[in-house]
Amino acid sequence: MMNDNIQSQNISSQIPPLGGGGAVAIVGVGLIGGSFALAMKDKKIASHIIGVCNRESTKQKVLELKLVDEVLPLEEAVKKADLIYVAIPVDSTVTVTQQIMDLVTDKQIVVDAGSTKFALCEALENHGSRKRFVATHPMWGTEYSGPEAAVHNAFSGRACVICEKEKSDSEAVKTVEDIYTTLGMHLVYMDAKAHDTHAAYVSHISHITSFALANTVLEKEKEEDAIFELAGGGFESTVRLAKSNPAMWAPIFMQNRENVLDVLNEHISQLRKFKSALEKENIDYLNELMENANKIKRIIK
Amino acid sequence: MMNDNIQSQNISSQIPPLGGGGAVAIVGVGLIGGSFALAMKDKKIASHIIGVCNRESTKQKVLELKLVDEVLPLEEAVKKADLIYVAIPVDSTVTVTQQIMDLVTDKQIVVDAGSTKFALCEALENHGSRKRFVATHPMWGTEYSGPEAAVHNAFSGRACVICEKEKSDSEAVKTVEDIYTTLGMHLVYMDAKAHDTHAAYVSHISHITSFALANTVLEKEKEEDAIFELAGGGFESTVRLAKSNPAMWAPIFMQNRENVLDVLNEHISQLRKFKSALEKENIDYLNELMENANKIKRIIK
Repeated sequence: MMNDNIQSQNISSQIPPLGGGGAVAIVGVGLIGGSFALAMKDKKIASHIIGVCNRESTKQKVLELKLVDEVLPLEEAVKKADLIYVAIPVDSTVTVTQQIMDLVTDKQIVVDAGSTKFALCEALENHGSRKRFVATHPMWGTEYSGPEAAVHNAFSGRACVICEKEKSDSEAVKTVEDIYTTLGMHLVYMDAKAHDTHAAYVSHISHITSFALANTVLEKEKEEDAIFELAGGGFESTVRLAKSNPAMWAPIFMQNRENVLDVLNEHISQLRKFKSALEKENIDYLNELMENANKIKRIIK
Repeated sequence: MMNDNIQSQNISSQIPPLGGGGAVAIVGVGLIGGSFALAMKDKKIASHIIGVCNRESTKQKVLELKLVDEVLPLEEAVKKADLIYVAIPVDSTVTVTQQIMDLVTDKQIVVDAGSTKFALCEALENHGSRKRFVATHPMWGTEYSGPEAAVHNAFSGRACVICEKEKSDSEAVKTVEDIYTTLGMHLVYMDAKAHDTHAAYVSHISHITSFALANTVLEKEKEEDAIFELAGGGFESTVRLAKSNPAMWAPIFMQNRENVLDVLNEHISQLRKFKSALEKENIDYLNELMENANKIKRIIK
């Protein structure tokens, strides 16, 4: 795996997760993959980054943006890499990760960064190389997508979920833990099913409410100039996620359908309580609903 | 009005809105009033700031925080001020503004900063001093409240709506326009009814969705540690407004009830479309809904 042509770089003394400079293949060099690529170099975790891109235009772009050192087809990239990082829409992740795992030796590590974990973990359950796979979800993102959306120091201060660590080789898990910790993330462990439930609450529903809020305002406010002129920080922060990429989010919502529907039903019923309080001009109930919502202060600083 | 004991300060040469250093009384020295007080001094628009506070504890606080030069009862403050700025919850604004307008001469200016405009403008319609009143809504705020929430340079870059300017003396309007422009705001003119409709779309609904989202997550997620550990930037930005003060927002929702209900009904119906797409596993419809929401990019950069 280690490319002999590549000089080992000055690896952080605190942690040499790839044994002193290795090659990382990044499958899908977009918001997450591109930011991960930048972090691998910034933190001197990897000495060589190989990008795997679907589209011809993206290949050019990721080289221009210096996110990767070279772009290769999937199979060649996998052969050259110590660690393969999969960061593509979750509907493609299952097939592509299986393809990768058919190719890897027991010295290589495969990691995915998808926002859903149950379908993938279930599909890989009985794969011969299951132990070389580590299921992760670094809980960071923005509303932007593609290689231009990649940023330095992206993951710092956020949580990274690792699922079913007992099904992976402990040395592979240790390497992945060291990488994420070096990026400044704190690690949270849970099974894939629990991950998907929690992700529906703390991430997926926020995106649906934001998409729906944008549609509401676009439907009601025919004078777009008024939105443009009047919108303040509150509107911008609640509607920000509505700019997110459907190609990324549709597969997430579909794979996590049951959990998302469950929390969406609850959300509609919570909105109906506000509606009822307003219809009945019941200011006490309105206050009660808002005071309950204020409890979120305890949790989110 | 002008306090003879107060030295005229070095007023910005570009604009002396109060004729070269005047006294401003701020009724309600919280998030908006306190930030306005700071801006009056920072921009050298006023040389003396008088605070009017309801609660004894707030009186101490606004002096400690140096938001105002002195605290006086309403009547004394009004007598001493060139301009009286009302920034209290909108249910009290009607009565208190009427009280103030019963006291003012035709040299003084009364301005309010409330988030609803129709009820207030209607109530003041036939007041003898209507011409001395300018109805405004500086569209800035945060989820925090009280004097501690006041910040420097608060209003810069945001819109300020001025309603029914034709009902105010043009010299009073000019002074108020100059003040807000000096604070870095751009001015938007509309009638009070149109203001309340637009405010429901671009501000009030965002607060309701955020309160309801917090309630949804608090209801569904019994493991608060999971929210605390996993929540990323997306969740935080959509739920941020749920920390807002019910004492400020309940009166806004109640005064703007019909518009808020109208947009809330639309929002529930937009959420139901996502629900239906998921229930039917209709990924094309899901994509269509998100692609439509993406149009908000055109409006909000």
